[in-house]
Amino acid sequence: MRRLGLAERLVATARRPETRDQACALGLVDEAMPDAAAAVRDADLVVLGVPVGASGEAARAIAPGLRPDAVVTDVGSAKARVAELVAPHLDMRRFVPGHPVAGTEHSGPAAAIDHLFDGRWCILTPNGDTDPAAVDRVAALWRAVGSRVELMDAAHHDKVLAITSHLPHLLAFNIVNTADDLEGVLKGEILKYAAGGFTDFTRIAASNPTMWRDVFLHNKTAVLEVVGRYIEDLMALQRAIRWDEADTLFKRFESASVVRREVVRAGQAYKRRPIVKLTTN
Amino acid sequence: MRRLGLAERLVATARRPETRDQACALGLVDEAMPDAAAAVRDADLVVLGVPVGASGEAARAIAPGLRPDAVVTDVGSAKARVAELVAPHLDMRRFVPGHPVAGTEHSGPAAAIDHLFDGRWCILTPNGDTDPAAVDRVAALWRAVGSRVELMDAAHHDKVLAITSHLPHLLAFNIVNTADDLEGVLKGEILKYAAGGFTDFTRIAASNPTMWRDVFLHNKTAVLEVVGRYIEDLMALQRAIRWDEADTLFKRFESASVVRREVVRAGQAYKRRPIVKLTTN
Repeated sequence: MRRLGLAERLVATARRPETRDQACALGLVDEAMPDAAAAVRDADLVVLGVPVGASGEAARAIAPGLRPDAVVTDVGSAKARVAELVAPHLDMRRFVPGHPVAGTEHSGPAAAIDHLFDGRWCILTPNGDTDPAAVDRVAALWRAVGSRVELMDAAHHDKVLAITSHLPHLLAFNIVNTADDLEGVLKGEILKYAAGGFTDFTRIAASNPTMWRDVFLHNKTAVLEVVGRYIEDLMALQRAIRWDEADTLFKRFESASVVRREVVRAGQAYKRRPIVKLTTN
Repeated sequence: MRRLGLAERLVATARRPETRDQACALGLVDEAMPDAAAAVRDADLVVLGVPVGASGEAARAIAPGLRPDAVVTDVGSAKARVAELVAPHLDMRRFVPGHPVAGTEHSGPAAAIDHLFDGRWCILTPNGDTDPAAVDRVAALWRAVGSRVELMDAAHHDKVLAITSHLPHLLAFNIVNTADDLEGVLKGEILKYAAGGFTDFTRIAASNPTMWRDVFLHNKTAVLEVVGRYIEDLMALQRAIRWDEADTLFKRFESASVVRREVVRAGQAYKRRPIVKLTTN
């Protein structure tokens, strides 16, 4: 928003003085205030960026300062629950639940990166009560910073994200812990030989633990369903290995590799370090 | 080896004519022959690069052409089993089981990339019968192409790699298949929102299905042990989500994020696209 000059004035609020100082020092905002109600006083658009479980408290804190025509949105990863949590405190006609599906494993003002949203999708989950003008406003913001925008029912969002984002994070957190507890294998060995595949999991396992704890607790139904299915499928592979079912394994692995090519084609794969072609002599 | 001029002459063998033609056209080898015994005829060093389950057959095929003093090594990911499979066909004093822990999801001659082994580890698993001079020879090759070399007992290798490489691949193959079967979620949606974490798993799920089928079947004991432990740990997280055990989740996620920092520090994380810092105005 800053780089593109999308706002006349950007004001932040955060509890910790270091966070506020850092946001100002990096030039991300014009001002950072400890008091949430004061920070939103003149705002026409407010973006809540807090762990899902803190959404209700954040809404309560800004409510006394909000202009009656202000549009409020958020960036949480569990949309049905956020709407429930903020409903007691906000005018829900002008609250537009949002979720930019983009990010890194880093958090805090210093983790701000340019072009993060380029070509990524942002999902908005308004319902029948949401003012269409407020939805347009929030959609225009995301489009302006490079996102593509999709509207979706909150429950459907929560199911889609359970498989595309929440389950991968849970699996990544879990493998790191399993590795940590394995007798006879030293931690140093895990680190040395991580390039064999483990590395790919550690990036998302480095994500903010508070944020992710909240995602799982507040998207419980959808997450438990996909975890249950995942375990069933994993146990089927385990059984195929035990009983030397070579064809079963081959077929499952082959169909998985097709999906990768489709993800790359859809433009949703991160680039790795440039591959240098071998020069022949 | 080509770039650094490490061999006077590089000769390949492969069953498919297209593979042989491609290796020559890319300048990777001086010659590519259909007959394995003929290909190794004058070689002082032979590297087997085949799926683990094909190691015995590959050893049998080269045996008639091998010079008595030739050193043979391989690059398979399950070391105890490879030694068993090649033993009937080779002079085991000059067979040095090897495993470069590096690679991409691509295979075939066109997937050759420069500097793949820089700073990565190569594990060699000789036993009491292996000629130390043969081990030195193979270690020197790997060091020359940029690897660091570690000697290890084959059984220990198989356990370490089960957690750092084989389990991550199995989990990645599995999530792609679970996603494929999820009712109510369209495949196009999985692809669109893959940037939320799913993407990180798809890269290794694109790996060669034959190679991975063989790894699981030939490192069965170690793989089944780590898969069993992984499922136990995952079910503990599932239970913590179901019963709102916020502290349990937080602690497990927090300890996982520490490991990422250590992997990065150990130099075993792949670089992602360059991060552009926000320029303030």
